[in-house]
Amino acid sequence: MTAAVFGLGLIGGSFALALRDNSLAGEIVGVDSSETNATLALQLGLVDRIVDFDQAAKADLIVLATPVDVTPVLATKILNQITPHQVVMDMGSIKEELCEVIAQHPQRSRFVATHPMWGTEFSGPSAAEHGAFKGRTAVICDGEKSAPDALETVRRIYQTLQSPVIPMSAAEHDIHAAYVSHISHITSFALALTVLEKEREEERIFDLAGGGFESTVRLAKSSPDTWTPIFTGNKYNVLDVLREHIHQLGVLRRMIEKDDKEGLRKAMKKANEIKRILK
Amino acid sequence: MTAAVFGLGLIGGSFALALRDNSLAGEIVGVDSSETNATLALQLGLVDRIVDFDQAAKADLIVLATPVDVTPVLATKILNQITPHQVVMDMGSIKEELCEVIAQHPQRSRFVATHPMWGTEFSGPSAAEHGAFKGRTAVICDGEKSAPDALETVRRIYQTLQSPVIPMSAAEHDIHAAYVSHISHITSFALALTVLEKEREEERIFDLAGGGFESTVRLAKSSPDTWTPIFTGNKYNVLDVLREHIHQLGVLRRMIEKDDKEGLRKAMKKANEIKRILK
Repeated sequence: MTAAVFGLGLIGGSFALALRDNSLAGEIVGVDSSETNATLALQLGLVDRIVDFDQAAKADLIVLATPVDVTPVLATKILNQITPHQVVMDMGSIKEELCEVIAQHPQRSRFVATHPMWGTEFSGPSAAEHGAFKGRTAVICDGEKSAPDALETVRRIYQTLQSPVIPMSAAEHDIHAAYVSHISHITSFALALTVLEKEREEERIFDLAGGGFESTVRLAKSSPDTWTPIFTGNKYNVLDVLREHIHQLGVLRRMIEKDDKEGLRKAMKKANEIKRILK
Repeated sequence: MTAAVFGLGLIGGSFALALRDNSLAGEIVGVDSSETNATLALQLGLVDRIVDFDQAAKADLIVLATPVDVTPVLATKILNQITPHQVVMDMGSIKEELCEVIAQHPQRSRFVATHPMWGTEFSGPSAAEHGAFKGRTAVICDGEKSAPDALETVRRIYQTLQSPVIPMSAAEHDIHAAYVSHISHITSFALALTVLEKEREEERIFDLAGGGFESTVRLAKSSPDTWTPIFTGNKYNVLDVLREHIHQLGVLRRMIEKDDKEGLRKAMKKANEIKRILK
């Protein structure tokens, strides 16, 4: 099987490595809108060759790991010119808009919409990691709209990567992703901005970071190019969660203002229930 | 040197282990207000014996690792009955109130106020870890109010534990700690509450947690008994940071509402500057 990866950053680069490491593809070619990234990806051995759109669109497996605002149009263009033996998949963080854009495409069934729940705060080809998806859930959205053979190809890839596959509708995915991933990034960005705004003594941040800051602010190092279209593309779900989050912060704030120790203790005890879900 | 540790939880337990692992103390005795914790600490070998207040107050080195609302009164009672060869230190997350309470005590100079920048989301004796403080900064507050020999004893301990010591005033410490540690805990608690409130499908949280949630919500597992008195004890600094944080979240929210991609990109790019400080 030949594979083409569009977008040779953190996710696309890691997926290319995973395909190769697991002998899932013969030749792996790559496309990237940035010439610098393309060259770097080639130097790093993420792909065998950098090719143009038309050449990439001939691969047996076409993987879209582009920013989510690029993917819907790119997916459509690729579906426009593939033959029915090819499989196209994406790996984006939001799914509803994409699935809506390609919904009526005559070749829709060749497309498999996926979202592997893996990432780091780093970006670009040099952020690609071996063994990235192992043990992480891969969501497959609206699988009933994909041809059984296309679905099976993608399932088998994730199975080989040791990523448990779970099915979900695109709409359901975007709601859950807002809660479990997007809001974490927003709070982390806001936390970094808060500290950069008010804490003028940067050395102190560095000295004292062991107190919990590092883990909560880690995601604030993430790429604006990746996250801007995720936040706006999943706008209504993200705003819904963000409103609730600001409300919860307000509740805690009022308790601190009023020295309401009993209220604080109860709220934190409730928050502790997250232990039940995340060990 | 004999040592007595008051409060045999995460911090006190880990410090007892560190004292022993580095042969910094001969006998190490412990005191805990919870009989269960005291018994467990003894079983786990954190301390050699559980003793009462009067016995503990005779140790050469007395370490207070109690919740921060307990420490000021406890410190005063201990200073009331020690002799001038003894050293008392604390390890609490806030320092101003404590330093104020003991400021005029005739034995003030025997006290060294410290805060090692280490912790985990776990609590109790079973959370104690070997090698906990290695590589983490230890803040010593208002060191000029401690006798040179007491200061030297504590400095040497942290040096042996490979904790770089930095001096700071108690007031300065509490401001920086609000930014770099306390706010991270508040956002994490609020994030857990947000998700628990709105995300009814707990299985989905578990499945999708790889998307960044785990690292930002980790601190929400922390002990309410530890954190309630920290938030109320450092009230004005914490509220100041919290107000700014809610403001920053509001700014991001409005940008998402207005599809202001350029604004979002710029804000995240600014947040990325945290990379400069935290690699």
